[in-house]
Amino acid sequence: MQERAPKGTRIAHIGIALESIAPQVAFLRELIGMEDTAVADSDGARITAFAAGESLVELLEPEGSDTPIGRFIARRGPGIHHICFGVDNLEEAMARCRAAGLRLVDEVPRIGAEGKPIAFIHPAATGGVLVELTEN
Amino acid sequence: MQERAPKGTRIAHIGIALESIAPQVAFLRELIGMEDTAVADSDGARITAFAAGESLVELLEPEGSDTPIGRFIARRGPGIHHICFGVDNLEEAMARCRAAGLRLVDEVPRIGAEGKPIAFIHPAATGGVLVELTEN
Repeated sequence: MQERAPKGTRIAHIGIALESIAPQVAFLRELIGMEDTAVADSDGARITAFAAGESLVELLEPEGSDTPIGRFIARRGPGIHHICFGVDNLEEAMARCRAAGLRLVDEVPRIGAEGKPIAFIHPAATGGVLVELTEN
Repeated sequence: MQERAPKGTRIAHIGIALESIAPQVAFLRELIGMEDTAVADSDGARITAFAAGESLVELLEPEGSDTPIGRFIARRGPGIHHICFGVDNLEEAMARCRAAGLRLVDEVPRIGAEGKPIAFIHPAATGGVLVELTEN
C-alpha cells in the first residue's frame, strides 16, 4: 500500500558553510522574505534554516575547526557546502548508486537534521560535489 | 492588474561548476531520475540543466580558463558555484538590497540562461556566497 503520493526528485535543501551567518540571515529573512524553520543541529554544525517553496536553505556554522564544516571553510572558504536531493524511495536510490559503483559515505540511512532518513554520497563519485539524499 | 499569482521566494536553480560533467549527469539522470531541460549557455559556460520539482540544477562547464567558472574551479576546485533565488518582484528585491547597502554585480536586470531577468549580488554582501536573483 502506497501511503504517500510520489513527489519526484526535488531539491530538499542546500547547505551553506559560513563562519558568520548574520549577513546571510539578514538577506534571506529581510530582503527576500524567506521564513525561519526549525531543524536540529547535525554533524558538529549549528544549523539555521529557512523555507523556500519546497526546499530549505540551511546555514551551517561549525562548532569547531575539527568538524566537517570547519574543515571545509579552512580549505575552501565560506560557500555552498552540499546539495540534498529528496527522492521518493531512498533505499532504492542508494541501491542504484551502489550498483553503478558509486561510493557512499553512509552505507545505511541515518536520521538527518530534518528528522528524515538521509545518506551522503562520496564527492569523488559525483565529480567533486558533495551530494546528500533524503526521502521525500 | 496582477497577471501572475505570487509564488513566494523559492530556489530557482543551483549552479554547479565542473570540469567534466559526465559523472554528475549520470547521477542526476540515471540514478535519481531527474529530467533534462534546455537552457541557454551563459557567461562563458556551457550549461546542461535538469529539472527537480520547482527548481533546476545547472551544470556549468567553463568554455575557457579565463571565464568566471574557469577561475572558480582553478581557485576552489569543482563544486557548487551559486544559488539563484526566484522572487515575485525582482526590481523590488533589488531595491531592498540596495537600500540595505548590499553591493550588486548587476545594477540593472539582464536576461539569464532561463530567459528571465536576473541579477547577481556581490558575494561580499552575503558572507562569501554568490547569490543570483531572478523573477518567478
